[in-house]
Amino acid sequence: MLATFCTLFITIVVLVSSLGNASDPDPLQDFCVAVDDYKAAVFVNGKICKDPKLVTANDFFFSGLNKPGNITSPVGAKVTKVFVDKMPALNSLGISLVRIDYIPKGLNPPHMHPRASEILVVMEGTLYVGFITSNPENPNQMNKLFAKILHPGDVYVFPRGLIHFQYNVGKTNGVAFASLNSQNPGVVTLANALFGSNPSIYSDVLAKAFQVDKKLVDCLQSLPWRQN
Amino acid sequence: MLATFCTLFITIVVLVSSLGNASDPDPLQDFCVAVDDYKAAVFVNGKICKDPKLVTANDFFFSGLNKPGNITSPVGAKVTKVFVDKMPALNSLGISLVRIDYIPKGLNPPHMHPRASEILVVMEGTLYVGFITSNPENPNQMNKLFAKILHPGDVYVFPRGLIHFQYNVGKTNGVAFASLNSQNPGVVTLANALFGSNPSIYSDVLAKAFQVDKKLVDCLQSLPWRQN
Amino acid sequence: MLATFCTLFITIVVLVSSLGNASDPDPLQDFCVAVDDYKAAVFVNGKICKDPKLVTANDFFFSGLNKPGNITSPVGAKVTKVFVDKMPALNSLGISLVRIDYIPKGLNPPHMHPRASEILVVMEGTLYVGFITSNPENPNQMNKLFAKILHPGDVYVFPRGLIHFQYNVGKTNGVAFASLNSQNPGVVTLANALFGSNPSIYSDVLAKAFQVDKKLVDCLQSLPWRQN
Amino acid sequence: MLATFCTLFITIVVLVSSLGNASDPDPLQDFCVAVDDYKAAVFVNGKICKDPKLVTANDFFFSGLNKPGNITSPVGAKVTKVFVDKMPALNSLGISLVRIDYIPKGLNPPHMHPRASEILVVMEGTLYVGFITSNPENPNQMNKLFAKILHPGDVYVFPRGLIHFQYNVGKTNGVAFASLNSQNPGVVTLANALFGSNPSIYSDVLAKAFQVDKKLVDCLQSLPWRQN
Amino acid sequence: MLATFCTLFITIVVLVSSLGNASDPDPLQDFCVAVDDYKAAVFVNGKICKDPKLVTANDFFFSGLNKPGNITSPVGAKVTKVFVDKMPALNSLGISLVRIDYIPKGLNPPHMHPRASEILVVMEGTLYVGFITSNPENPNQMNKLFAKILHPGDVYVFPRGLIHFQYNVGKTNGVAFASLNSQNPGVVTLANALFGSNPSIYSDVLAKAFQVDKKLVDCLQSLPWRQN
Amino acid sequence: MLATFCTLFITIVVLVSSLGNASDPDPLQDFCVAVDDYKAAVFVNGKICKDPKLVTANDFFFSGLNKPGNITSPVGAKVTKVFVDKMPALNSLGISLVRIDYIPKGLNPPHMHPRASEILVVMEGTLYVGFITSNPENPNQMNKLFAKILHPGDVYVFPRGLIHFQYNVGKTNGVAFASLNSQNPGVVTLANALFGSNPSIYSDVLAKAFQVDKKLVDCLQSLPWRQN
Repeated sequence: MLATFCTLFITIVVLVSSLGNASDPDPLQDFCVAVDDYKAAVFVNGKICKDPKLVTANDFFFSGLNKPGNITSPVGAKVTKVFVDKMPALNSLGISLVRIDYIPKGLNPPHMHPRASEILVVMEGTLYVGFITSNPENPNQMNKLFAKILHPGDVYVFPRGLIHFQYNVGKTNGVAFASLNSQNPGVVTLANALFGSNPSIYSDVLAKAFQVDKKLVDCLQSLPWRQN
Repeated sequence: MLATFCTLFITIVVLVSSLGNASDPDPLQDFCVAVDDYKAAVFVNGKICKDPKLVTANDFFFSGLNKPGNITSPVGAKVTKVFVDKMPALNSLGISLVRIDYIPKGLNPPHMHPRASEILVVMEGTLYVGFITSNPENPNQMNKLFAKILHPGDVYVFPRGLIHFQYNVGKTNGVAFASLNSQNPGVVTLANALFGSNPSIYSDVLAKAFQVDKKLVDCLQSLPWRQN
Repeated sequence: MLATFCTLFITIVVLVSSLGNASDPDPLQDFCVAVDDYKAAVFVNGKICKDPKLVTANDFFFSGLNKPGNITSPVGAKVTKVFVDKMPALNSLGISLVRIDYIPKGLNPPHMHPRASEILVVMEGTLYVGFITSNPENPNQMNKLFAKILHPGDVYVFPRGLIHFQYNVGKTNGVAFASLNSQNPGVVTLANALFGSNPSIYSDVLAKAFQVDKKLVDCLQSLPWRQN
Repeated sequence: MLATFCTLFITIVVLVSSLGNASDPDPLQDFCVAVDDYKAAVFVNGKICKDPKLVTANDFFFSGLNKPGNITSPVGAKVTKVFVDKMPALNSLGISLVRIDYIPKGLNPPHMHPRASEILVVMEGTLYVGFITSNPENPNQMNKLFAKILHPGDVYVFPRGLIHFQYNVGKTNGVAFASLNSQNPGVVTLANALFGSNPSIYSDVLAKAFQVDKKLVDCLQSLPWRQN
Repeated sequence: MLATFCTLFITIVVLVSSLGNASDPDPLQDFCVAVDDYKAAVFVNGKICKDPKLVTANDFFFSGLNKPGNITSPVGAKVTKVFVDKMPALNSLGISLVRIDYIPKGLNPPHMHPRASEILVVMEGTLYVGFITSNPENPNQMNKLFAKILHPGDVYVFPRGLIHFQYNVGKTNGVAFASLNSQNPGVVTLANALFGSNPSIYSDVLAKAFQVDKKLVDCLQSLPWRQN
Repeated sequence: MLATFCTLFITIVVLVSSLGNASDPDPLQDFCVAVDDYKAAVFVNGKICKDPKLVTANDFFFSGLNKPGNITSPVGAKVTKVFVDKMPALNSLGISLVRIDYIPKGLNPPHMHPRASEILVVMEGTLYVGFITSNPENPNQMNKLFAKILHPGDVYVFPRGLIHFQYNVGKTNGVAFASLNSQNPGVVTLANALFGSNPSIYSDVLAKAFQVDKKLVDCLQSLPWRQN
């Protein structure tokens, strides 16, 4: 019978979310353009560098952020990332960029960046955005939500490692750009990581943590969890 | 009718969890013992320091970690933290410590530390521990869980900013010590932050993110979310 | 007679330019919203923080970047900065943002950021952008220029501390957004700093450095040097 | 005749001591599990990383800290280190751990860690612990010792780069765990480094520095200096 | 006719200048002596390290700074650099050194270091030295010059990333030593980078930035720009 | 009877030694000139800053390093330090300087810097210099000494946190300049800190650590330990 409820509860499939903020080590030369992983014989903290004599202006260049991302996911949002994997010159420079597209009611679901803070500017749409502080020292005080409705031209900042989200509460599509202070900030989409990990976390753990029945956890763990 | 299900699903109340890892700025003098916030006229990144002439050995000292923490929370675990708030000499030194106690089936629920990595050593009990990596570049690949059953004397490490947990799967109480590389690593207990924030996140956001009905979200948001 | 040439040479007045890149110290708490300098009794590396209990969502918010900057300067460009002075929550978070507007032939003149790298995305217009590497080890090899023509949706990155510029070579207005990995990256507009410092640098120094007559230096030092 | 005195003075052979504290560079990915040096074709600051696709939970795991270290050294203490050499996942994470065992009157002799601060918690025994500050600005003021007697459950912190020690003043064996904020904090046991270096420091240097006769230095340099 | 003026304006040829200041990542082992680039199969942020077993005292050694640099350049100054390229043991240690020689009226022309602050001590001669702050927030306030005449034994500090210079205003040769807090601080000699880059910056850009005629820019760009 | 030997052994009184190397946090503005401690109402990691509007060129200036330090100490060396206490503009800039004078057989005794690496250049004299690595992993391998005889113009580097020294083996006075990559590197003169701390370390600890009789320790602890 639980399966019924579980079916009932499912209304939209979550996609991968996206941006954050952090403080990388300093560069030790003008640039250190990354070599693609599949060409690399050696892995290091960060990436190994292309021979500086072979570097050209194209290594510092990326294109296509004028076009909306292709929103195929049920959460109704798409994050187009320009991290060091896509733009090798970001290696050692401590910065990266994303474009986020939202349909009406599109959501960049609650997520956090283990290695970066994030600054976001709204281009189009009306976004409900927020972040939640870490645990209070006083156990009777809840985790604080700092949230706001943003319009075009508005800027908001999400501190490193804290949970945050954006939700398009307007009637038209939304677009935002955001920058993160790491070449590779990482993204942890919370629902996906918790219920869609591989292998699954013991359902006891999640049932106890979320104060729900284990069967609901089993059900949630059986759903598809896709990236946005 | 949902209230019934919601009641049905609730089996255990989650408490706040605890430990993590990070890389603070370097010290600029031998020590900079923190002044308590309530005595501080000024707030800075970190803490302001006590007059060095008034510093004594007691400032570098904390006691009581030989005694089990008082487990009152439904998750069956208690984290006793020694962060800069409790031990002012940690200010500027980039390290801190916790003791964690677990009853059988006690859980330190999924959480992460925005500013620290964590190394844990088991003293007593049998702990199922794990952490989950950030989103995969390949959208068909799930977030990876690196988990293991630990026994006394075993050590595990949780990288900075990633979700992790410990669950006592043994029949006796468990005890672990863990250290984090920040004076104030922060703790974000995920279920608490998501469903227990103040004010609440719009339930639409959480329903879409977790692929569940909004009524379940409303119900979860009405539960007490306590720290462990 | 030199005065004549000086007049002859002058065709457009340069304004101060703007963006850059850098790696700040890590945060030691969730946030440390800056207190305005004029209210601060104490100055520190970075800024002192507002009492955390008084912080609201508005501290993380800035608005107005949807409107073009007011281009009044002869270089034909305006940089609207969102550094920690304008958005106090950036304190300790290691990131900031600018909007740049250009008329046709508008120039964000050669400048560098002592404390940040910069990532730029073009919204409108056709921009000739570039940066120059530091001195070569081989003295017969010149400082390398990495330059490119950018169109809307194109992204470019300028490494920390290197000279860079953008020039609108299109027939319509240009708009770009750029982010820098410091709360306060600093901007050194080279022509302004060299010829418009207060007090002036001895003209001998500049004449020798630029391989020009001292009278030309005197003339340049007598010009108005305004920020853009 | 000096040999006689020298023999007379020697009462216990010192072993290498162990723990400390420091602030490593930040990670640039979720993890960078180290490759063993003997397999590495290339050396870097830190360690090169294992191919991420080959990483398993065992890389984050170490065992055996429940057992006392094997105390064979005359100083009567044994430090069991879990640095990046033993636990490759510590690479890029900025943290490490040690277990220290002491017989009664067992000593972890004066030492320091060039790259880490250290937090220590006592499990068993009664330890006299302390650290010494750096040189005073006022030349008539001595280097300050901050020392204390610790019992089980007590915690103490040793700031980065300062000389510190632990001495078991109780009648039973002692056990402590300590954590250091570097993957590879380094240990400099002072007596060993000064009198047991290879090759030896000119005895003139040590005689003058320690205000003793050169023959005593010669004698000390001829002793075996072993690690604990 | 412009060529004539251009000839007229040229009085002395500028050479490359030299020193600065910055904060590199921390070392993760006692040392990491660099391998020469031409022997390196792999490039990283910084340099890869020599096998530690092969390191000798000579790797930490450099000689010849007792002899004046060979001043062949028209600016009348020579900077002898001891950066990581010349002294491989500087790799990962975050420090470097230069010796600067000046003939009377010799100039170390305006330059900056993208990755370091610099401390300078005068050995011989009378030097006019200074640095210029970044752009003022108040657009009517000019960039500030902090300058001073130095004599033997005088020390001055140039903050990271800011433009600075030294000019020998005495009648005898000058000598200074300076140290920078990066293994590879980088040097950007402003006149050289702006007018001598390869390829050249569009002359429109420089004409507008410097408020001069394009023909003067063309002329300056045709000059030889050599390093000092 | 031991007292006799002890008297016998004492030949020269050691003074405090001086220099080292380290990596401070990055600056967050052009400069942050320190306020003197005795004027400061507040202490922070580093120093609080002078109101920027009141800063002048003199804040970046220090003089007198052309004159030999006044060598009054029995070790026959004098270190004249230019740390942030003497030159307030060093605050937040991560660099400092010393001049060292040596009589023939003058010694800058074994010491280390908890927060800095050091680069040294010899001006006059013949110096035997060296540093010792941290404990070997292989317990049969001794701590390695990297030592060399230096002449004028020679440069040597001492890695952060490692024990090092300089000894004038020439027949004339020696002079060296050294720079350290911290505004406040700290100096721990080992003999002084170990035998001259206040209060004294239990003599048992030192007797065991140095493999000598407790009476020799008592005797050494009763000697005057002065800074050089």
